[in-house]
Amino acid sequence: MSYQTSVAQDSLAAAQLEMAGNPNSIALRRPFDPVAHDLEASFRLTRFADLKGRSCKVPQDVLGKLVESLQQDYSQADQDQFMHVAIPRIGIGLDCSVTPLRHGGLCLVQTTDFFYPLVDDPYMMGKIACANVLSDLYAMGVTECDNMLMLLGVSTKMTEKERDVVIPLIMRGFKDSALEAGTSVTGGQTVINPWCTIGGVATTICQPNEYIVPDNAVMGDVLVLTKPLGTQVAVNAHQWLDQPERWNRIKLVVSEEDVRKAYHRAMDSMSRLNRIAARLMHKYNAHGSTDVTGFGLLGHAQNLASHQKNEVSFVIHNLPVIAKMAAVAKACGNMFQLLQGHAPETSGGLLICLPREQAAAYCKDIEKQEGYQAWIIGIVEKGNRTARIIDKPRVIEVPAKD
Amino acid sequence: MSYQTSVAQDSLAAAQLEMAGNPNSIALRRPFDPVAHDLEASFRLTRFADLKGRSCKVPQDVLGKLVESLQQDYSQADQDQFMHVAIPRIGIGLDCSVTPLRHGGLCLVQTTDFFYPLVDDPYMMGKIACANVLSDLYAMGVTECDNMLMLLGVSTKMTEKERDVVIPLIMRGFKDSALEAGTSVTGGQTVINPWCTIGGVATTICQPNEYIVPDNAVMGDVLVLTKPLGTQVAVNAHQWLDQPERWNRIKLVVSEEDVRKAYHRAMDSMSRLNRIAARLMHKYNAHGSTDVTGFGLLGHAQNLASHQKNEVSFVIHNLPVIAKMAAVAKACGNMFQLLQGHAPETSGGLLICLPREQAAAYCKDIEKQEGYQAWIIGIVEKGNRTARIIDKPRVIEVPAKD
Repeated sequence: MSYQTSVAQDSLAAAQLEMAGNPNSIALRRPFDPVAHDLEASFRLTRFADLKGRSCKVPQDVLGKLVESLQQDYSQADQDQFMHVAIPRIGIGLDCSVTPLRHGGLCLVQTTDFFYPLVDDPYMMGKIACANVLSDLYAMGVTECDNMLMLLGVSTKMTEKERDVVIPLIMRGFKDSALEAGTSVTGGQTVINPWCTIGGVATTICQPNEYIVPDNAVMGDVLVLTKPLGTQVAVNAHQWLDQPERWNRIKLVVSEEDVRKAYHRAMDSMSRLNRIAARLMHKYNAHGSTDVTGFGLLGHAQNLASHQKNEVSFVIHNLPVIAKMAAVAKACGNMFQLLQGHAPETSGGLLICLPREQAAAYCKDIEKQEGYQAWIIGIVEKGNRTARIIDKPRVIEVPAKD
Repeated sequence: MSYQTSVAQDSLAAAQLEMAGNPNSIALRRPFDPVAHDLEASFRLTRFADLKGRSCKVPQDVLGKLVESLQQDYSQADQDQFMHVAIPRIGIGLDCSVTPLRHGGLCLVQTTDFFYPLVDDPYMMGKIACANVLSDLYAMGVTECDNMLMLLGVSTKMTEKERDVVIPLIMRGFKDSALEAGTSVTGGQTVINPWCTIGGVATTICQPNEYIVPDNAVMGDVLVLTKPLGTQVAVNAHQWLDQPERWNRIKLVVSEEDVRKAYHRAMDSMSRLNRIAARLMHKYNAHGSTDVTGFGLLGHAQNLASHQKNEVSFVIHNLPVIAKMAAVAKACGNMFQLLQGHAPETSGGLLICLPREQAAAYCKDIEKQEGYQAWIIGIVEKGNRTARIIDKPRVIEVPAKD
């Protein structure tokens, strides 16, 4: 046991080297090197799930159907408890739950998410998973998380050695991200599973004024997006560097260097917390928000639209996309559905309804505080609670951070 | 979609028939009939995971090793936050976490668990999964749960039809059990996975006097167990009815009728909430408790012993076992390790340290309220925080409930 533990320690040391002094700077982070961790050079974390780079979620319509049979028999008593928040109790898109508590006007705001490895760096995978779980709280404008649980599935196909190296790195990444968010991991569950899984639960107990019920969009609002699209395209393109027949499909539109830059931009983006974006929602009077993940920009926009109190619709004009990834998506035909708004994202940005006169200031403030752009991508008009992307949306190329 | 939904509705109707009027009476419950749900007669929920009837947990020693590298670098700030509860923050055995909150002296008590199908009745599987998640709260003496999340993995190997029949039944069972516990399911996550998985999260926000820190056993206490052992043995034996080569190994010691009774006893036991057991812990001044699940009676006893403030050890003399299952376990050689205390249980009973003079009254009270026996199975003596079973423990045969 002491030998195995010391391997894990060496591995953590290697991980620290990879961070190159500044744990928050992805730009400076070296690529994950399996050999430095005493693993085979061919080790790829993403091999431990067949769904890598695709959404692991049950399709939106299927989930709706499965949940439907439950919804209809919720009793009136149940309904009362949730009357003031128009949020489904089973995680369809807007997957934070809000529960009034027995104690002094407080509410329990809670979310859970888990998925499969989509990058090969275990430490970064842990950070991304944690940021992704927290993102559901941030989408509700909640900025303080009281605790997190970590849910891990160790793949049955991992060797003991791989497990002893990789799992502590994932845990470390998850925990570091939680610390960055001002919270900590207080428990969890680790099971054996064919696929490697990673996820968690985030919980906040707060006053009702700490969260923003996302149902208040009004005509004339604009839509702001806080992270670029294309994370999954970038992750896939990066994997194709090793697969000549795939690479041949896209090499006319993108260079190897472009892909590596996009991949690092994607990792940086997916591991970035939406916390400041959430904090600024209060400052600039946001009318509602959702985070963009497995159902793609349009899927989440439609879901948010369907929950509005007012008769409004969302129209999206601009698509900020990680540089070159729109070209890659086009070269792949309909596979990604990126420009149609259906490409799944992991730990994507917040899509926020803001009063028109506040939106520019919101974007400027987030850039000042974090050094990242946000974009006005659409408008809220009168309508029947749906969302669409205009025929020829403008694609905004978002360069890799230097 | 409407067609599929109506199938699910028929299926729920069939489930209601199976409950035969009294949803809480397992004795009256008919066996799950796939054909009544419009599935193939050969459909078995337990085929959707390779680990059925075995623990899905990562072995205790491996988990300890994986977690070790994290524990050591928890900062002092972290420690302070948890100083008053000697509970590991990563779920090793005692897997409730307790987090002090920002608001008025309240604490967040939380637990998560998930596993794979081990019975073929989807509705019962949902109930068992829910009871199993809640059990960690009950082990801490917490009787009120504020909300639950449901975590579901839909097997990639299920047909659409199977999925549309089975998943709503599992959800229904889970939800019914939550209602029985006085709480409700406010959210969750559903993903696609090779194996079918089912689990959840249970959360309570409470005053510190609502939970019992399980570290206060004293010399002279006795150990009480509130459910019989042998659930996994019964589940396996029942599956072997379909497998002649396995059945031949045990048919000399057990009849088919015995096995069916034991299986129903096990389902009844696994789906029973430990809530009254938890409530009575307060009335009879329990000094600590744990629930018996994946690591077996001795594994959990050892874990509880290791967390004691006083220099005590646990000695177990009696093993209450579902009728005939001790014989089955013996006929299978060392496979189950039942009498050695290592057979995994699912949603097992509470193992409670009680003052000697209160224990009999505790057992009598639980029987009066629930109609189920509890047993004094051991003693707390001076020692070095370990637990053991005596050489020839007395096996108590616990009959199936009529």
